[in-house]
Amino acid sequence: MTRERLYLYDTTLRDGQQTQGVQFSTEEKRTIACALDALGVDYIEGGWPGANPTDSAFFDAAPETRARMTAFGMTKRTGVSADNDDVLAAVMNAGTTAVCLVGKTHDFHVRTALGIELSDNTDNISKSIAHITSRKREAIFDAEHFFDGWKANPEYAHEALRAAYDAGARWIVLCDTNGGTLPGEVGRITAEVIAAGIPGDRLGIHTHNDTENAVACTLAAVDAGARQIQGTLNGLGERCGNANLTALIPVLLLKEPYASRFETGVSEEALKTLTRTSRMLDEILNRVPRAQSAFVGASAFAHKAGLHASAIVKDPTTYEHIDPAEVGNARIIPMSNQAGQSNLRRRLEAAGLKVEKGDPALGLILDTIKAREAEGYSYDTAQASFELLARSALGRMPEFFEVKRYRVTVERRKNKYDKMISLSEAVVVVKVDGEKKLSVSESMDETGSDRGPVNALAKALAKDLGPYQSIIDDMRLVDFKVRITQGGTEAVTRVIIDSEDGQGHRWSTVGVSANIVDASFEALLDAIRWKILRDRGPVA
Amino acid sequence: MTRERLYLYDTTLRDGQQTQGVQFSTEEKRTIACALDALGVDYIEGGWPGANPTDSAFFDAAPETRARMTAFGMTKRTGVSADNDDVLAAVMNAGTTAVCLVGKTHDFHVRTALGIELSDNTDNISKSIAHITSRKREAIFDAEHFFDGWKANPEYAHEALRAAYDAGARWIVLCDTNGGTLPGEVGRITAEVIAAGIPGDRLGIHTHNDTENAVACTLAAVDAGARQIQGTLNGLGERCGNANLTALIPVLLLKEPYASRFETGVSEEALKTLTRTSRMLDEILNRVPRAQSAFVGASAFAHKAGLHASAIVKDPTTYEHIDPAEVGNARIIPMSNQAGQSNLRRRLEAAGLKVEKGDPALGLILDTIKAREAEGYSYDTAQASFELLARSALGRMPEFFEVKRYRVTVERRKNKYDKMISLSEAVVVVKVDGEKKLSVSESMDETGSDRGPVNALAKALAKDLGPYQSIIDDMRLVDFKVRITQGGTEAVTRVIIDSEDGQGHRWSTVGVSANIVDASFEALLDAIRWKILRDRGPVA
Repeated sequence: MTRERLYLYDTTLRDGQQTQGVQFSTEEKRTIACALDALGVDYIEGGWPGANPTDSAFFDAAPETRARMTAFGMTKRTGVSADNDDVLAAVMNAGTTAVCLVGKTHDFHVRTALGIELSDNTDNISKSIAHITSRKREAIFDAEHFFDGWKANPEYAHEALRAAYDAGARWIVLCDTNGGTLPGEVGRITAEVIAAGIPGDRLGIHTHNDTENAVACTLAAVDAGARQIQGTLNGLGERCGNANLTALIPVLLLKEPYASRFETGVSEEALKTLTRTSRMLDEILNRVPRAQSAFVGASAFAHKAGLHASAIVKDPTTYEHIDPAEVGNARIIPMSNQAGQSNLRRRLEAAGLKVEKGDPALGLILDTIKAREAEGYSYDTAQASFELLARSALGRMPEFFEVKRYRVTVERRKNKYDKMISLSEAVVVVKVDGEKKLSVSESMDETGSDRGPVNALAKALAKDLGPYQSIIDDMRLVDFKVRITQGGTEAVTRVIIDSEDGQGHRWSTVGVSANIVDASFEALLDAIRWKILRDRGPVA
Repeated sequence: MTRERLYLYDTTLRDGQQTQGVQFSTEEKRTIACALDALGVDYIEGGWPGANPTDSAFFDAAPETRARMTAFGMTKRTGVSADNDDVLAAVMNAGTTAVCLVGKTHDFHVRTALGIELSDNTDNISKSIAHITSRKREAIFDAEHFFDGWKANPEYAHEALRAAYDAGARWIVLCDTNGGTLPGEVGRITAEVIAAGIPGDRLGIHTHNDTENAVACTLAAVDAGARQIQGTLNGLGERCGNANLTALIPVLLLKEPYASRFETGVSEEALKTLTRTSRMLDEILNRVPRAQSAFVGASAFAHKAGLHASAIVKDPTTYEHIDPAEVGNARIIPMSNQAGQSNLRRRLEAAGLKVEKGDPALGLILDTIKAREAEGYSYDTAQASFELLARSALGRMPEFFEVKRYRVTVERRKNKYDKMISLSEAVVVVKVDGEKKLSVSESMDETGSDRGPVNALAKALAKDLGPYQSIIDDMRLVDFKVRITQGGTEAVTRVIIDSEDGQGHRWSTVGVSANIVDASFEALLDAIRWKILRDRGPVA
């Protein structure tokens, strides 16, 4: 059976940039465009040439892509010809294979936002699209506020679409610009548009997530016959974001009825890079990846409930709707006070620790975790600290070095120019291989800014660990999370530290204390011990 | 026209706690339960009594709620009677109005996860539900993996539902436990269940967000006839989370066809607290609220695109599908200073500062706030720091005292009994009324425990402020929140401190720095300055 082709149109670089707080540089746009191309989308909407310097610079030197590079703009204004509209000219001059123009299809908007006659608007659409096709470019029409327009005045909305279609637009994209239309209505109206004479294989769908239904609205339009899908990586976009391609792509490739019925430009192999691609975008945006994201989130295949975790061990399909490897993600069975012994054994095995069923150490480890969680520790995410704790309980944890003492000073005072400055200094004393080593560091970074006492401590601790120094030299602290929690009767501070090394490994450790500096020190210490353990092996 | 009743069943305290990294304390569970009750949900699933100490403690002293408090558990095991099943007994002993039991309906799970005969499973369901109803409690049956079960073996899945229904379950909840079923299939199968004889007003729906379709799946089941909705606040839950009530509630109350057709226990007034309730949960979890969340996110009504922003000024309905005030949220137009100024004047007036419309100080204050928010400050909750900032800009802030310098030392070492101890010591130098005062304090509390460097600093700072000492003597620090945030290009620490005085006044202040101790000091300083300002009056 031949499968129908669905076309993926990515607008991360244009609508995605409308996300509050997001502003890509030209170089970042290039990087993202290349990643999208590798993933296998069909169209890359690169931005609006002429609207801002970054977008213009991107098109001046757009990367070579297999995907059709697309410039975005709007239909020409009333009173000038398409040839003489300078906004449209800037879009055309970007020289892309495809050009997408947004235009009004909702009578209320034509009158309120544009303040022109309905017939002028249809004429603008028609002339603009004809202008593109006459220059042998592929024309795409984004029908703004289409669903609201169809509900308010279906005759006019249809007339506007028809203007673009008759002028030769390859795609007519039904946009739910406000994001307020629910899936049932999107499906019904898309079917009505097709019944009114515009074929489904010429229709696209563009939705927003204002009711958390953007993915479902997209699927409803595909069910009704639309064959182009617009969306963004990680659901970036204006307000609540656009339809999330990072969720839609695996749904279309892996889930029925879509997997058997359709094909896209994304291969099985490319799908395995989805998680990495999603994280890369967060990295560029310097955002902490959202753990609960469908398919690609760090928690997407984390099984915390005891019942789930023990069934997963018997057969992963009991609680997983797809194999996490298909999207380049991985299963996690976190430790928590809900976990039982079988869960624990599996987790230990993953850490290379084989413990026989019924071994009394299992009960001991569970009790230790329970007691520590009552103090404020959390081993859900801090897997590295969990492993160290388990190894200690099993007597399989070498003491690489001993911290004899430390001292940190935080000072704020005026400098000689009468300016208030702050500075931290840390002294750490360790014993390694019988030798005592004193290290001192301060908290100043390369730019002369004070990075605080934890930074000073981390540097002093990692300054001289004798035979282990080469192992920890490529470590760096990538995230630092602090939470005030209740440990026993008093408030305590829980610090979780994420570390990374030169090979891209990442691990998390935890420390708890009423003293925030001490809690941080504990987490730092675990991070170093775990790194040495992994790189050097458990035998000291 | 009378509207049909939809019932909202909240499982934030049970399935929501399955979120990786989430572990509520008993007190936090109480706070959330009260917030859910105020919102107007019909059922509050408080946890699994007997499964862990926190849940048991919660039920031991559950708050009085209008909503039906519900204990969760599982159907009895094979080989014991319902009376003699200790797991079930613990659930019953919680004494709740309603009891919800999860049971298997998918033949594969009965055989693989439980390893028992299909008929034994149906018998367990039947006997367990009958056990609940015989004790005059409302019985609810969570049909685990129902959709997968129905697809694999519809006869058996129906038989399992039927067992619960015939035994008197008020609700049969169709659970998509893996989160892999898409909306179309949820709608179709729900309709088939109703056609097979279980009425829709006895059916509930429980979905997960593994394909980003949990809200849509829930709506599809309601469209098909289900009348109970299970979900969580902010979509907390196992893996990618449960159906998000924070999105579903406004959809049901504000969007058609639901708004005209159904009613829930949530009033229009309560709906206006939705944003606040959502933020409160994030506050408890110390999570940064997700800006792009539907309805309640900070960006949900932010209009960044130039075209959108200018149309919004003409008529908000051009780019908003609902009025943000209906859910207690607010419109943000990043580029418009106009809306900002009238907001600011209202806020200043609330702080007793009258400023005329058009006063240039308004622009100055807005610019200062904007610049500081870019550095990582947040004045949403830190109203006292906001007031101090505004007073400074208006030239209405006296300098009560000046901090010349401070120094804090954190030390960890062995004491004379060879036990590791930690201790902090702080020295603060202030100038009050022309007089220099040195104060020193350490971090030990009455019990001899180290409370850390911020505690030592707070004590030293409040030790001798000359003429102001009597004013600040009754101050105490009641909460301390730390968040790592992005200030400019570097990660910085934001500290928010809540203070209280002897008359029960509470106020919040903020400090930001890469140095966590310095950020805390800044917030402490603001707390003291605000207290003096209020008690002594603005004239020094």
